Amino acid sequence: MKSIGLIEVSGVTAAVDCLDIMCKSADVEFVTWERKLGGRLVTVVVEGQVSAVSAAVDNAVANAIKKPVSHAVIPSPHEEVVRLLKLSASRIKKKEGTK
Amino acid sequence: MKSIGLIEVSGVTAAVDCLDIMCKSADVEFVTWERKLGGRLVTVVVEGQVSAVSAAVDNAVANAIKKPVSHAVIPSPHEEVVRLLKLSASRIKKKEGTK
Amino acid sequence: MKSIGLIEVSGVTAAVDCLDIMCKSADVEFVTWERKLGGRLVTVVVEGQVSAVSAAVDNAVANAIKKPVSHAVIPSPHEEVVRLLKLSASRIKKKEGTK
Amino acid sequence: MKSIGLIEVSGVTAAVDCLDIMCKSADVEFVTWERKLGGRLVTVVVEGQVSAVSAAVDNAVANAIKKPVSHAVIPSPHEEVVRLLKLSASRIKKKEGTK
Amino acid sequence: MKSIGLIEVSGVTAAVDCLDIMCKSADVEFVTWERKLGGRLVTVVVEGQVSAVSAAVDNAVANAIKKPVSHAVIPSPHEEVVRLLKLSASRIKKKEGTK
Amino acid sequence: MKSIGLIEVSGVTAAVDCLDIMCKSADVEFVTWERKLGGRLVTVVVEGQVSAVSAAVDNAVANAIKKPVSHAVIPSPHEEVVRLLKLSASRIKKKEGTK
Repeated sequence: MKSIGLIEVSGVTAAVDCLDIMCKSADVEFVTWERKLGGRLVTVVVEGQVSAVSAAVDNAVANAIKKPVSHAVIPSPHEEVVRLLKLSASRIKKKEGTK
Repeated sequence: MKSIGLIEVSGVTAAVDCLDIMCKSADVEFVTWERKLGGRLVTVVVEGQVSAVSAAVDNAVANAIKKPVSHAVIPSPHEEVVRLLKLSASRIKKKEGTK
Repeated sequence: MKSIGLIEVSGVTAAVDCLDIMCKSADVEFVTWERKLGGRLVTVVVEGQVSAVSAAVDNAVANAIKKPVSHAVIPSPHEEVVRLLKLSASRIKKKEGTK
Repeated sequence: MKSIGLIEVSGVTAAVDCLDIMCKSADVEFVTWERKLGGRLVTVVVEGQVSAVSAAVDNAVANAIKKPVSHAVIPSPHEEVVRLLKLSASRIKKKEGTK
Repeated sequence: MKSIGLIEVSGVTAAVDCLDIMCKSADVEFVTWERKLGGRLVTVVVEGQVSAVSAAVDNAVANAIKKPVSHAVIPSPHEEVVRLLKLSASRIKKKEGTK
Repeated sequence: MKSIGLIEVSGVTAAVDCLDIMCKSADVEFVTWERKLGGRLVTVVVEGQVSAVSAAVDNAVANAIKKPVSHAVIPSPHEEVVRLLKLSASRIKKKEGTK
């Protein structure tokens, strides 16, 4: 996995808006989302080259319809982090019938 | 996917009311809903031509029995956003036995 | 689908009480319920002729052991609303082994 | 179904305590429980003759380690209420391999 | 089932700490846990002889890294309580492939 | 199972950051995570030699983008604690198709 970016915001509307901003402003791909943490929090995870991920996250933080609660860019995620994210994404791969 | 509209409101009653208003006031279709975010929040997503989606969302915001917490219109959603929404809608397609 | 009535109240006890009041005070049928929205909120949906649904909802609002958080009567729900409610009810039909 | 009693309290510990008190103080049986409403609320439902259910609920309200948030006795539940409770209990019947 | 002990605390970390304390301080066994009640609450249930269960719960209350929200010892649980706990534990038995 | 370390923090972004810090600062492995407790809480569990686990947890507490809500190191977890954690991890093993 390449670099990863994480954005956490209140509600699906703002999360979808963040993902749209990120993907339009840099070459990043959607990895997974988590949305049953309670307190209306939604996490969106993207991956790409580190410069693209940084630009994407910066743009979402600056321009989203709702200010993100937290965000992070992890340039070289440890393989155990990749493992956790693949687990989260596995239900997505399964639904899409790929991999 | 065409343009998308998102409305987020507290409770299923208001969410159903919003969907009814949106579909009666413009030519939009129900795409998916999310309702396990906690804090009673319910998200309804519709799609259609951009003018129809805008009219639908405006009408719901103006006339719903409860003021929506947030709303957005995304005229040309990025393909990764379409992918996320299709994932959310896949459990619906599955239940309806279509696609 | 006929007219629909929605009642939203805090807790299963009050929701069951509302359903009992609605069904005893007018000719309405249980359609579905939602109870994982967080914040203890429970939504009960019934259907019937518009006059019956109105009477049922009014009675529940007036006589329930706990004041409902919100309620609505939708006389002629749009087909997309019917679709959303059928999705919600599909897990019920499945459990009951009918339809 | 006979008369039903519902007790709603914060947490599984107090809910289990309520059920133990109810079953020891009157001839009632466990029907179902709901515990994913958010806000730590747990609902326990019992059934039996109306006098037994009333005594059971009264005892739990008076003696539980935590004061119940709400409670109700429904002497003659409408058949639609019985249907809703059977739906809630169906996952229990399924796990116990009976019915 | 023998006597049961219940401990309820905020978060999985403190719940795991409570279970470790209970099992190390007395001859009790893990029965089940509940962790989707909302509000971060986690319930841990153990069983054993009444003196062991009492000692275990007392130790956890006194020494846990976070003060439990509630706790209880039920020396002779009613068979309906045993039934509820077995239901809760059935997903565990299933995962462990035993019984 | 070796020693275990637990970190609990608000949100998936901070939890992923904690896991990355832990795995990069000491020789520990990801065991499981819990993320549906409500209140946005996410628990990450790692295992390893006691000195590695201690260093990992200390580093995450000191350097995470968000201060953890709670953390613990259990040098010699009781077998019942190992059993609980294996249950939590079993859905992970299942998804990864191992064991």
